[in-house]
Amino acid sequence: MMEPAEKPGCLSTKLSLNSNYSMEDIVLGIDIGGTNTKFGWVDRKGRILVQANLETPMYPTFDDLIRDVHSTALQILPSMKAGYRARAVGIGAPNGNYYKGTIEFAPNLSWKGIIPVTACTAGTFGLPSFLTNDANAAAIGEMQYGGAKGMKDFVVITLGTGVGSGFVVNGEVMYGHDGFAGEFGHIIVDPHGRPCGCGRKGCLETYASAKGIFQSMTELLSKHPEVPSVLRKQNSFTARDITVAATRGDQLSLMAFEELATVLGAKLADIVAITSPEAIFLFGGLAQAGDTLFIPLKKHMEDNLLVIFKDKVKLLPSMLSGSDAAILGASALAWMECERPS
Amino acid sequence: MMEPAEKPGCLSTKLSLNSNYSMEDIVLGIDIGGTNTKFGWVDRKGRILVQANLETPMYPTFDDLIRDVHSTALQILPSMKAGYRARAVGIGAPNGNYYKGTIEFAPNLSWKGIIPVTACTAGTFGLPSFLTNDANAAAIGEMQYGGAKGMKDFVVITLGTGVGSGFVVNGEVMYGHDGFAGEFGHIIVDPHGRPCGCGRKGCLETYASAKGIFQSMTELLSKHPEVPSVLRKQNSFTARDITVAATRGDQLSLMAFEELATVLGAKLADIVAITSPEAIFLFGGLAQAGDTLFIPLKKHMEDNLLVIFKDKVKLLPSMLSGSDAAILGASALAWMECERPS
Repeated sequence: MMEPAEKPGCLSTKLSLNSNYSMEDIVLGIDIGGTNTKFGWVDRKGRILVQANLETPMYPTFDDLIRDVHSTALQILPSMKAGYRARAVGIGAPNGNYYKGTIEFAPNLSWKGIIPVTACTAGTFGLPSFLTNDANAAAIGEMQYGGAKGMKDFVVITLGTGVGSGFVVNGEVMYGHDGFAGEFGHIIVDPHGRPCGCGRKGCLETYASAKGIFQSMTELLSKHPEVPSVLRKQNSFTARDITVAATRGDQLSLMAFEELATVLGAKLADIVAITSPEAIFLFGGLAQAGDTLFIPLKKHMEDNLLVIFKDKVKLLPSMLSGSDAAILGASALAWMECERPS
Repeated sequence: MMEPAEKPGCLSTKLSLNSNYSMEDIVLGIDIGGTNTKFGWVDRKGRILVQANLETPMYPTFDDLIRDVHSTALQILPSMKAGYRARAVGIGAPNGNYYKGTIEFAPNLSWKGIIPVTACTAGTFGLPSFLTNDANAAAIGEMQYGGAKGMKDFVVITLGTGVGSGFVVNGEVMYGHDGFAGEFGHIIVDPHGRPCGCGRKGCLETYASAKGIFQSMTELLSKHPEVPSVLRKQNSFTARDITVAATRGDQLSLMAFEELATVLGAKLADIVAITSPEAIFLFGGLAQAGDTLFIPLKKHMEDNLLVIFKDKVKLLPSMLSGSDAAILGASALAWMECERPS
C-alpha cells in the first residue's frame, strides 16, 4: 500500500491504538445530500471498509449533523480489523465551495446561508478537511478509482435530480476563480423554455435531469395519446419508472429519452468544442439506463461535433459502483489533497 | 532581468558574438496569419526589440516561409544593440496544435494537410520551438505581459475574422486532450442558422466575428430601410467601417452591435457557468469598438448569468498593444515553455 508522505497541516490521528496490527492509512468520505448523509472509511485503494448513513433533514444545524457523523464514524471503526490511522476528511455536498470550505445557499438543504463546513469538520475530527461539490467529487473519484485513471482531461456529468459537472483539466479539477466552476446544468438551452429552480428559464437541467425527463414524459403522454405506454395506466411515476420502461422498449418512454438525448447531445458537443476532453463520463440515476441513453446521446453528440472532434471523444458510464460512488468521490478528494505536494 | 534557468532541450544559441555587451536573453515570437506572418525578437519583459513582416501567401510551402523568417530575423538582429542570446521560438498560428507542434488543416492558410511546424522551425533555427493556436498565444501573452498578470483562471476571446478562445485554468492553458480545446467560435447558437466555414450551421462565429457583424449589417440594411445609416450610401463596407460608424452613433450600426452582443453575451454566460473565470478579455478588431461593444455585451452577459456569478466576472479589453499583440503572445509561449520547471 502506498504510504502518503507526512506534510504540515495534514495531521494524522490515530483512531485505534491496537499495536498488534500494522497501521493502515484511511480517510473518511462524507457525501451530504438533501435526503441522506452517507459516510464511510476508505483505504488508499478505494475500498470502503465500513459505512453508515444519517438522514440529513433530521439535523437542524450542520454542527448537529457533524457531531453525529463523528460519533457514528468512531463507533463503526472498531468493528473493523483494528489498526487504522485516519488521515483526512473529504466531503462532497451540493454547492460545496472548495476554496472557502463552505456550503453556500444550497437549495436542496434545509440549512440556509453560508455554512463553514470544513472549519466545523476539522474542529470536530481534529483532521484536515476538504470540501467540494458532489460533481467534482465524482470526477476525482473517477480519476482515482474509476474509468478516468491516467486521464488528464475529462468531464463527469451527473444526471440526478439536477445536472452537475466536474471538469478535470491538465490533471487538476477546474474549480474556477471562485470555486463554483462546473455549472453545466445551468447553461441555457432555450431562453423561453422550462422554468428552472435557479429562477431563470430553459436551463439544461430542466431537460436533462430526472426532473426534466419526468416533465418530458408528462408532456408526451398528453401530446401523443396514440402512442402506447405502460406509464399511461399509472397514477404516478418517477424518472426511474421511465428508465425501466424505456429499457423494456416502451415507445413513449423511448421518445422521452430521445428528447433528452437531443438536448444533452448538442450541449455535450459544445463542451467538447471548449474543453476537448478525452472522455465524458455519465454518473447518476439516468446514466443507469445504459444503451437506452448512451446510443441516442452518442448519436446526437457526434451529429453536433466540429469535424476535428468527431469519433474522438469517449462517452462512458461512470465506473464507480453506484451506491458507494458518492462516498468514494468524497474520499478521493481527501486522498488527493492529503497527498498533494507542498 | 530574470535569468531563465538552463534546462535540457532548451538550448541557447548565441546570435551575436560581440562580447563587449553583457548577454541578454531574447526569444523570437512568430505570428502566422492568412495574410501576414509577423515576427519579432522579444525580451523577458515583453518588449519587442525589433520586428518584421512577410506576406504568408507568397510562400508555396511552410519550409520556404520559415527559411525567409530565419534569414530576416538574423538580418534584423545586428541592427539592435548587440549581445543577445536567443533562447527559443514561439509560434502562434490558426489550428496550431501545442502537443504535436503541427498546423492541421487550417482553412485560412494555403498549405494543406498537416504541417510539422516546430520540427521545421527547430531544425532551421537550432532552437527549441513551441506552437499553439493564436487564441492560446493571446491568452499566454495576456498572462505574461497584459491584464491577466497574476490571474489563474481567465479567458481570452479573439473577435477577428472568426472567433477564437484561449482558456487558462489553474494557471495553465487548457489545451485539452488533443490540443484543440478552445473552439468557442464553434459552439452552435442556432442549428438552423447561418452557414459556417466549418460545414455546419449557426456557429457562434457566424454572428460574433467580423464576418458575422458584416452579415448582420447587410441584413439590417435591407430589413430596416427606415433606419438611417451612413453605410447605406456606400457601395461596400467592412466590419471596421461598421465599428467606426457605430462609435460615431450610427443607428443601424449600433443595432448590428446590439445583435452581436445579444448572441455573444448569452454564450459568455455559458462559459462563466462552466469555467467560472476571474475575467474575460476581448482581443482583436471588434474589441477596438470600446463601449460600443462592451456596454451592451456586459448587459447581455449579466442578464444571462446564474445568480452566483452576477457582478463577479470582469469583462475587459486585452491589455496587449494591438498591432504587436500577436508577436507578444507567441513570444510569451516561448518564455513560458523555456522556463517551465523540468
